[in-house]
Amino acid sequence: MTIGLLKEPEGENRVALLPESAKALIQLQVQIIVESRAGEKAYASDKDYEAIGASIHSRAEVLQADLILGIHPPTEEEQLALKDGQVLVCLFQPLSNKKLVERFLDKKITSFSMDNVPRTTRAQAMDVLSSMATVAGYKAVLMAASHSPRFFPMFMTAAGSIIPSKVLILGAGVAGLQAIASARRLGAVVEAFDVRAAAEEEVKSLGAKFVKVEGAKDEASAGGYAVEQSEEYKAKQQALIQEHARKSNIIICTAQIPGRKAPVLITSETVEAMAPGSIIVDLAASTGGNCELTENNQIIEKHGVTIIGDSNLPGTMPTDASKMYGKNMVNFLKLIIGKEGELMLNWEDDIVQNTCVTHQGEIRSERVKNILYPSEIN
Amino acid sequence: MTIGLLKEPEGENRVALLPESAKALIQLQVQIIVESRAGEKAYASDKDYEAIGASIHSRAEVLQADLILGIHPPTEEEQLALKDGQVLVCLFQPLSNKKLVERFLDKKITSFSMDNVPRTTRAQAMDVLSSMATVAGYKAVLMAASHSPRFFPMFMTAAGSIIPSKVLILGAGVAGLQAIASARRLGAVVEAFDVRAAAEEEVKSLGAKFVKVEGAKDEASAGGYAVEQSEEYKAKQQALIQEHARKSNIIICTAQIPGRKAPVLITSETVEAMAPGSIIVDLAASTGGNCELTENNQIIEKHGVTIIGDSNLPGTMPTDASKMYGKNMVNFLKLIIGKEGELMLNWEDDIVQNTCVTHQGEIRSERVKNILYPSEIN
Repeated sequence: MTIGLLKEPEGENRVALLPESAKALIQLQVQIIVESRAGEKAYASDKDYEAIGASIHSRAEVLQADLILGIHPPTEEEQLALKDGQVLVCLFQPLSNKKLVERFLDKKITSFSMDNVPRTTRAQAMDVLSSMATVAGYKAVLMAASHSPRFFPMFMTAAGSIIPSKVLILGAGVAGLQAIASARRLGAVVEAFDVRAAAEEEVKSLGAKFVKVEGAKDEASAGGYAVEQSEEYKAKQQALIQEHARKSNIIICTAQIPGRKAPVLITSETVEAMAPGSIIVDLAASTGGNCELTENNQIIEKHGVTIIGDSNLPGTMPTDASKMYGKNMVNFLKLIIGKEGELMLNWEDDIVQNTCVTHQGEIRSERVKNILYPSEIN
Repeated sequence: MTIGLLKEPEGENRVALLPESAKALIQLQVQIIVESRAGEKAYASDKDYEAIGASIHSRAEVLQADLILGIHPPTEEEQLALKDGQVLVCLFQPLSNKKLVERFLDKKITSFSMDNVPRTTRAQAMDVLSSMATVAGYKAVLMAASHSPRFFPMFMTAAGSIIPSKVLILGAGVAGLQAIASARRLGAVVEAFDVRAAAEEEVKSLGAKFVKVEGAKDEASAGGYAVEQSEEYKAKQQALIQEHARKSNIIICTAQIPGRKAPVLITSETVEAMAPGSIIVDLAASTGGNCELTENNQIIEKHGVTIIGDSNLPGTMPTDASKMYGKNMVNFLKLIIGKEGELMLNWEDDIVQNTCVTHQGEIRSERVKNILYPSEIN
């Protein structure tokens, strides 16, 4: 089988496989063809790929491979030129890209979306959302600290003492927990909020205070994600967050609900009540933001507060983000590549079954089917 | 006595006194007049100054004060309009600003430059160079980590492990030591180099490895600064630094010699030998840089290495930098303000004597006199 590695579109610095991961794949008896300059922005040259046994080709040739790898999917035009039976493994958010899913159904493409990997223990080694959230949580803290007019750590100097920054983290998933850990490393005083009661212990274990709103609806069945809450709960939550936000120098927003608009946790009034010079980093910017004033891919100042709306922080740390993405990719591909380097789709395997979006003109993932075509179910 | 607080020129976010420091001064029975919007970029409003008992005035009025405070000196034109006997306290680098010193001699201005405070234990509370170097060392690490394509800390994840970044710090003065501490906080593996043998213990106490070149000339009499070294020593040093630089992901340059061009420690060849994606932050940029390729106030990429030439990092953290500067300022002013808020110049006090550059048409500081007018001494 040939595996083709795409160069990512302009503005994306990562690559789906660094040479070290490509090397691991070659050991599975597959042939790897790499689009010229695919790894350039992650500091991996064509020569580096050739050195581990891959060959360099044009994009058109890579798009003919039996199995195509990427982070972002190929363009619409390129998708239309794919052939029946070709396999595409990338990260295309099927829940919010129905048209793309329908093209793959039409063209009988076998498509796997890495953001569809189930959030089970066995699948952790392939969980790109967790890997990328780790990068995002770390980078969010660095961005906040870089923009802040204050130190994060406390200082006792000959000229007096500097008090540590107060950081509030909204959402204690992988990104939020990594943000807590990074802000603590830098010496800040950290509080975190999450609707999931289970987050309390994790937050506390990282040395942060847990901001608790009583009466949350919790759903273990949501697969580790947060669920929508009642209006009464939201009002209590809003009041408590406002109270803590006012006292914070930094807020890092990470609360997202898959396939939906992000919950608004920081209103315009809350921003106005914060001290001038405070910083908000909103990782939920691309789905509307947890802060009402966030503008996607913009750094703005409102009421003296700097609001950074950035949902692609992993792209700003391309070497390690690509390394993690590539390792996840290799771990996943091992499930669908047979002993002789052939495609082997084992539908008994829940990871293969749930990560697959389309195959032979049908939607395989129950989650994608339920959300994109709810009427056909009920 | 009236004390005037200047608004800093465009591009400088700090202010010499935040309201909290102005308040401490007012307790010394002086009257404080503040240029309108002086604290704006450090998030202190005119109202904040009025609230602690200062009054807001035009720049022209502030320039009439008995004692004028600032970070940067007033413009040349404004200097020429100052009157005999007015006192100016700011940070004007007299060693590299002979013309300015001569204007102050002509105009019989009493000028104190805060970078001239002796580096003694008693003067630590007024040492703005140390305060600002603390900010610069911390921010240099944040800039390096923000630009790096890799994590600083080690990660053990379900998808494999990420190795920590290797950071090399050149110069272990206040900025260098703070950079070591900050890089260690973020989880990097840190090495540091300094020509001063005394630095070894401090470097090691912060958990970093000391890169040692044998045979350095050390001079305790240099007042804590580094001194020029022999050609043989420099060659050995160059070879050793090149060897360590090649293995580093991050280099932070802090080596400066007051009143001279910064030593070149990282040559073009060294940069070329570093791994693509490496980062150099050069705090010595304004005096030529420790890296041969550094461009002042620019972020450039050469041989795949990002070189950040920035000597005004304190200005990027205006709240805490202004707070520290202001505290240093107040501690110094306490030495020259008498019980009834009057100017009191005690030339017996070595701090007053050495910080003063010009007074009644004469240079007071021996160090400034020796460096600006060496022939008159020898």
